[in-house]
Amino acid sequence: MKKDWKAKLHEVIYEADTPAGKLFDIVLMILIFASILLVMLESVNEFAESHGKLLNIAEWIITVLFTLEYFARIISIRKPKEYIFSFYGIIDFLSTIPKYLSVFIVGSQSLVALRALRLLRVFRVLKLARYIGASNNLMKALKASKTKIGVFIMFILILCTILGSVMYLVESGEESGFTSIPRSIYWAIVTLTTVGYGDIAPHTALGQLIASIVMILGYGIIAVPTGIVTAEFATMDKTKIDLNTQSCQHCAAEGHKANADYCFHCGESLHPEETD
Amino acid sequence: MKKDWKAKLHEVIYEADTPAGKLFDIVLMILIFASILLVMLESVNEFAESHGKLLNIAEWIITVLFTLEYFARIISIRKPKEYIFSFYGIIDFLSTIPKYLSVFIVGSQSLVALRALRLLRVFRVLKLARYIGASNNLMKALKASKTKIGVFIMFILILCTILGSVMYLVESGEESGFTSIPRSIYWAIVTLTTVGYGDIAPHTALGQLIASIVMILGYGIIAVPTGIVTAEFATMDKTKIDLNTQSCQHCAAEGHKANADYCFHCGESLHPEETD
Amino acid sequence: MKKDWKAKLHEVIYEADTPAGKLFDIVLMILIFASILLVMLESVNEFAESHGKLLNIAEWIITVLFTLEYFARIISIRKPKEYIFSFYGIIDFLSTIPKYLSVFIVGSQSLVALRALRLLRVFRVLKLARYIGASNNLMKALKASKTKIGVFIMFILILCTILGSVMYLVESGEESGFTSIPRSIYWAIVTLTTVGYGDIAPHTALGQLIASIVMILGYGIIAVPTGIVTAEFATMDKTKIDLNTQSCQHCAAEGHKANADYCFHCGESLHPEETD
Amino acid sequence: MKKDWKAKLHEVIYEADTPAGKLFDIVLMILIFASILLVMLESVNEFAESHGKLLNIAEWIITVLFTLEYFARIISIRKPKEYIFSFYGIIDFLSTIPKYLSVFIVGSQSLVALRALRLLRVFRVLKLARYIGASNNLMKALKASKTKIGVFIMFILILCTILGSVMYLVESGEESGFTSIPRSIYWAIVTLTTVGYGDIAPHTALGQLIASIVMILGYGIIAVPTGIVTAEFATMDKTKIDLNTQSCQHCAAEGHKANADYCFHCGESLHPEETD
Repeated sequence: MKKDWKAKLHEVIYEADTPAGKLFDIVLMILIFASILLVMLESVNEFAESHGKLLNIAEWIITVLFTLEYFARIISIRKPKEYIFSFYGIIDFLSTIPKYLSVFIVGSQSLVALRALRLLRVFRVLKLARYIGASNNLMKALKASKTKIGVFIMFILILCTILGSVMYLVESGEESGFTSIPRSIYWAIVTLTTVGYGDIAPHTALGQLIASIVMILGYGIIAVPTGIVTAEFATMDKTKIDLNTQSCQHCAAEGHKANADYCFHCGESLHPEETD
Repeated sequence: MKKDWKAKLHEVIYEADTPAGKLFDIVLMILIFASILLVMLESVNEFAESHGKLLNIAEWIITVLFTLEYFARIISIRKPKEYIFSFYGIIDFLSTIPKYLSVFIVGSQSLVALRALRLLRVFRVLKLARYIGASNNLMKALKASKTKIGVFIMFILILCTILGSVMYLVESGEESGFTSIPRSIYWAIVTLTTVGYGDIAPHTALGQLIASIVMILGYGIIAVPTGIVTAEFATMDKTKIDLNTQSCQHCAAEGHKANADYCFHCGESLHPEETD
Repeated sequence: MKKDWKAKLHEVIYEADTPAGKLFDIVLMILIFASILLVMLESVNEFAESHGKLLNIAEWIITVLFTLEYFARIISIRKPKEYIFSFYGIIDFLSTIPKYLSVFIVGSQSLVALRALRLLRVFRVLKLARYIGASNNLMKALKASKTKIGVFIMFILILCTILGSVMYLVESGEESGFTSIPRSIYWAIVTLTTVGYGDIAPHTALGQLIASIVMILGYGIIAVPTGIVTAEFATMDKTKIDLNTQSCQHCAAEGHKANADYCFHCGESLHPEETD
Repeated sequence: MKKDWKAKLHEVIYEADTPAGKLFDIVLMILIFASILLVMLESVNEFAESHGKLLNIAEWIITVLFTLEYFARIISIRKPKEYIFSFYGIIDFLSTIPKYLSVFIVGSQSLVALRALRLLRVFRVLKLARYIGASNNLMKALKASKTKIGVFIMFILILCTILGSVMYLVESGEESGFTSIPRSIYWAIVTLTTVGYGDIAPHTALGQLIASIVMILGYGIIAVPTGIVTAEFATMDKTKIDLNTQSCQHCAAEGHKANADYCFHCGESLHPEETD
């Protein structure tokens, strides 16, 4: 069985069943971590000033490597458009382009727009999500309880709007930070979710009474999302399906069953070389 | 089968099974959101000063629209009193009236009483609850565990009273904010519910020891409401009943079974036009 | 069937099945709430100074009423010692005595010892626990998972000791409040239980990294007590027993089955008058 | 059946089935608590200065006792290496050695390295974990859901990286503490886990809006680890195995089944004296 170099490249890049494929994945993971670390270090002022040059070089090296990966992915797939406009294709493009753009807009390095653009590189972290195969079950449970969770969040928001408005009325004369209804709603969310920053906190006796009610409410209704997801998990656990790490050479679809021979999305064979 | 205009209006306003009914619901939802946004923006001082006139006009437009909706609801129903004194009828009235009252009491715009009155408009957010049909199940689970949750909250309050009093004794000489028993109880609730503002925090070693116990207690007993609701959900999930979005033309009762022909509340037919 | 006055008094005080018994319970509940309110108001300095005399009179009235209740309980029971040395007997005594003692030690009103003594009155709130019959189930679930919860708390304390010590080392040179190991352990508990006061918070990068780990740990292991109690609830729910509100005239034992005729503790009849 | 002194010593030290074995365990527990208390008190500056001599003597006594225990453990076991390089063997060694080393490096008492070394003594608290036999079940549930929890934590970290970066962009111009991406990620973790110190908190309206989303996210997804562990507990509870407190004289393996006759790890008899 002879494989052409494109098929080989596809196997290395898109699958993790061969030694080369596994090595590629590990190298890619290290690169992603290094890349995220660079973006973080760049944002620490003291470090950026003392090691600016080093950071710049390292960033260029990583950018070039990700550029190579991007083109390799496009070349090795039979229908490049499917990849380019897929979620990961867009992430790959958006997180690689900023460094190149920075060459053209050197004069205005401090612009907020550019800063935002450069932060796009942090989205490379989403490439890690490719490796969370095991989370399929977890995501399924969340998806199954989507409607219930939506209703629950709507309920929370209605509750916080009412509670925030009441607190705005009660505490408005005080120096406690309830200066407008949106801020008061922000406080209600901070309190109901039991986060409790303390940047806004009631000073009056009545305000503290209402706050106590909000807290006990929040402490009690946390049971609701937990109950929803736990119930969903209980039913979910019974129907596990084994998935492999292969992806289709035609359409880049992932999540094939362990014993699948054809892509569930486009119907092409998953082992084209064997049928030659 | 001919329908009179009242029946048609009733269908549009109270039901969501026809295209016109769905459109009405969507328009109403947008109006509610716009209305809530206006109340919020009005409370932000900088915005209220610079755009006061605009806010006033927009508020008048919305108030007139809600007034029309209010009267349409009264006219289209056969027993108007059932609607007027229902939960939503009162909400509709209370949230529409403040703007009209503001005309008569112009001289004393800054009164707290008027401020409170104007905040009634925020209750329009409760009209959104009409659309949380999916939450029936959620509410049922909460209602079923009402007694247990009540006992749990009583238990929490007794615990917080004791703990707060002890902390008042231990920390009373310090500058840590435990100036009275009610404030100390407030602190106990803030800590037990794991909110933790930090506006009142123990300074003495003994106080911090007791606080640690309170925290671990709170961290542990959060399991109790969760256990209650989860258990209730598990049994609840098995008995789902399909409900439709119709409401009775006589008494405005909602939540009829999908195949119901007569109102479960007043016994009148739900399809009067078909029996003509 | 003639009842002697002691049996009648016993029925009114210890049981809630007759109208008189229910009325007694309601009056007692109101008195307890009033009493707790008085203790709270006394601790608010501004109020205590302006209404000192009123508070004193009200406190005397309540103390006399609770004294009458205490003696009525002793007289109406056949074995008074069982009541006097029971949990509620001790609570009743301890919460009534402080006011009488305050007469003898007038000269040194500001003593901390006296203050502590007077706070004993707050324990009257525990008398409310008599009415939490419905919580039997709740308490049973907690008791059944006692060992597991004990192990869990021990695990938390070992974890916090290690984490606190490490943070003490990392942050000791900073101004962030980690001045000793006990304080650092206090911080670890505050953080792990997701309370998060913010009075002690890491300033160094390494400290914030460790703190992040502690938080994610705390966020994750909160699942453990919940899992324990929920599992216990699931089995508990299946075996509900109906209990009545009667208590034995001989030994004050409570929690008899709905159809019990004899005390499960001392074997005496629960309906002595009927057997006359 | 005659036992040699090594076998007897082994029984006393490694097992808790005989009165002597139980006494040994209790004495050891008290020593561990005393030892931890000493390390804590040493870290409180005021106490260390006023009672320095006393602390030093007490520490020496405890160190000598733990040294004796360490050698007794080595002597009484047939394969000492198994103990020395086991988890508890290393803990025992590391927590005993610092006091001896402190004799040789007296001149530089204030070195951070030495301080860290002395803190190793706090790890003695881990010796308590020997007594958490009941937690086997708890640990099993956690181990069984290891992969799912790992994926969940990875998901949380990816989410916090994205959210922290966005907040860094939004709040960078403000005085609210979002000075670098790592700090912003730290804030995202503090908020998502509902800890909420409040040392870093958003000041802008947009920042508070994003923070609200983070909080509701955190409040909602706390259900996920709970659901995972609860589901695992439900299946775990059905298959309980009784374990005894014996440990193998050859290899120190613990956790034998109640009716085991041979060590599951090295195959040696667990009752060698009986086979003599």
